Amino acid sequence: MPMLDAKTSALIDKMLAGDRLALARLITRVENRAASVAEIMRRVHGRMGRAYILGITGPPGSGKSTVVDRLTALLRAEGASVGIVAVDPSSPFSGGAVLGDRIRMQSHTLDPEVFIRSMATRGSLGGLARATSDVIKLLDAFGKQWILIETVGVGQTELDIIKQADTTVVVLVPESGDAIQTMKAGLMEVADVLVVNKADRAGANPLMTELRFMAHLQRTSPQTPKDIDWEIPVLATQAQNDVGIVELLAAIRGHRGVLESTGALDKRRRARRRAELQALLVEELTAEVSRRLGPDGDLAPTFEAVAAGRIDPYSAVRKILKALAP
Amino acid sequence: MPMLDAKTSALIDKMLAGDRLALARLITRVENRAASVAEIMRRVHGRMGRAYILGITGPPGSGKSTVVDRLTALLRAEGASVGIVAVDPSSPFSGGAVLGDRIRMQSHTLDPEVFIRSMATRGSLGGLARATSDVIKLLDAFGKQWILIETVGVGQTELDIIKQADTTVVVLVPESGDAIQTMKAGLMEVADVLVVNKADRAGANPLMTELRFMAHLQRTSPQTPKDIDWEIPVLATQAQNDVGIVELLAAIRGHRGVLESTGALDKRRRARRRAELQALLVEELTAEVSRRLGPDGDLAPTFEAVAAGRIDPYSAVRKILKALAP
Repeated sequence: MPMLDAKTSALIDKMLAGDRLALARLITRVENRAASVAEIMRRVHGRMGRAYILGITGPPGSGKSTVVDRLTALLRAEGASVGIVAVDPSSPFSGGAVLGDRIRMQSHTLDPEVFIRSMATRGSLGGLARATSDVIKLLDAFGKQWILIETVGVGQTELDIIKQADTTVVVLVPESGDAIQTMKAGLMEVADVLVVNKADRAGANPLMTELRFMAHLQRTSPQTPKDIDWEIPVLATQAQNDVGIVELLAAIRGHRGVLESTGALDKRRRARRRAELQALLVEELTAEVSRRLGPDGDLAPTFEAVAAGRIDPYSAVRKILKALAP
Repeated sequence: MPMLDAKTSALIDKMLAGDRLALARLITRVENRAASVAEIMRRVHGRMGRAYILGITGPPGSGKSTVVDRLTALLRAEGASVGIVAVDPSSPFSGGAVLGDRIRMQSHTLDPEVFIRSMATRGSLGGLARATSDVIKLLDAFGKQWILIETVGVGQTELDIIKQADTTVVVLVPESGDAIQTMKAGLMEVADVLVVNKADRAGANPLMTELRFMAHLQRTSPQTPKDIDWEIPVLATQAQNDVGIVELLAAIRGHRGVLESTGALDKRRRARRRAELQALLVEELTAEVSRRLGPDGDLAPTFEAVAAGRIDPYSAVRKILKALAP
């Protein structure tokens, strides 16, 4: 077992005592997938489980950041402490967008009870969902009561990230009308609350009517697997003008209430922890396989035989699994 | 080692002797990921390696199927035998598109030297790339000299499928102009030959000029990893009218010639076999982990402890890896 160096250990103590700078440094280690991540997570484990995780997703330009900003203001007015993780998996080149979000959120940057962190891919997308999950845990252990994850909703990575939320809000704009035709099923799978932002623009009403119809179909469809009876509410907001945000928070609380009172929240979190363990195991095993198949690995000769076409991969796998078995 | 039942064994013998019906039945088993797949692949392994794999990809509506149809006619006119695999990973609901492809290709359905198979997802996308790879091997062992894989080019699965080709043709249409802005890098990474089909339509010339510029940049960029010196040719076709197909086949042969004369073909095929072995191993290990974590598995108690939040997943992984190690 790798022991923690004194410096990391001290950082964790400081973080758990409420030091924001220590938290920021630990997050950086998690983002960089430092060797100490496993030990860090082990140390903070006992302090977790009190935060409520809210996901905010939607297409670029839908005003997600503004919605996050206004929700944060409301939560802060009630005295809750808030952590915000803005994840931009789309590309390592869109640093501009992340920066934009940061600037838009600066109304909270002087508030010590709001911790904001932007995360972007550094090469591999695969690691981003895991890093986000660990950052959420750090914020939870730090004592944040609400953790807001903001991400652009499109690919598998974004889906893996948003699935870590207890309640997910999908933010659309009237212009999203055409796009949702192609993402209907995915939208209804992800959303617990639907928001049409910039609702003063043309097309808001027909879009809301359509979304409500979809939400109703979804609720009544026998094919929808559901642990709770919940019809996705469709709300209109103008986040820029602070319109509809109180109603949005109420809808989020409504969803949270149903999850908590039915025991579904606990069941879902258990399922999430299961999925996480499985993913982590597969990751570790993949790394182990790569190492052993590598130039100096004990399985390199088998690998070579397959590459040269001397044996078929299925026979090679059987051989290797035998070698790996106890 | 699971032994092959007599029926499967007889099927393989028949297939290797040239029986098309036996080939079709074996492909069905591979598609369904039957338990006998590993043994089937082991048996046909020695007969593989003579086919040339041609990938044809592009957005929906670009006329890929017609290009495949016309290329097949040319290859058949030269006396080559051809296998065609049309893969539609986009959704299990788009049966119509696949059917359309089948109908369009019926000019060859009576030709015993052309074997056509459509494949679509049945639930999991993950298995589709592997199934396609195994179907290619069966067609290779069956004696097909050219194997054409047709797929819609977008996501990771499609990319995994198309990477199994020796030469890949990307088919665009003049209307693709806007779309390629967002997929530039991906396009140049995948394409060995670029085709602007329906080239009699407006916008064909500017699109070709732009693509040629991109291809030139790609060739001269120091960032492009390359084992051969190849500037992606950009060709105009009107597949419907059989215009430009001879030139397209010549360009494909040009690429093949460079791959063969430089030894790059062999190197790439080795790399592919390596990647395949690795993917197969990870798949098997994942299945093994799922089994052992399942209700009756020996690792179930650890899994339960994680689900209940009693231990953190990193500590659990360490524990499990120890249990798995010899």
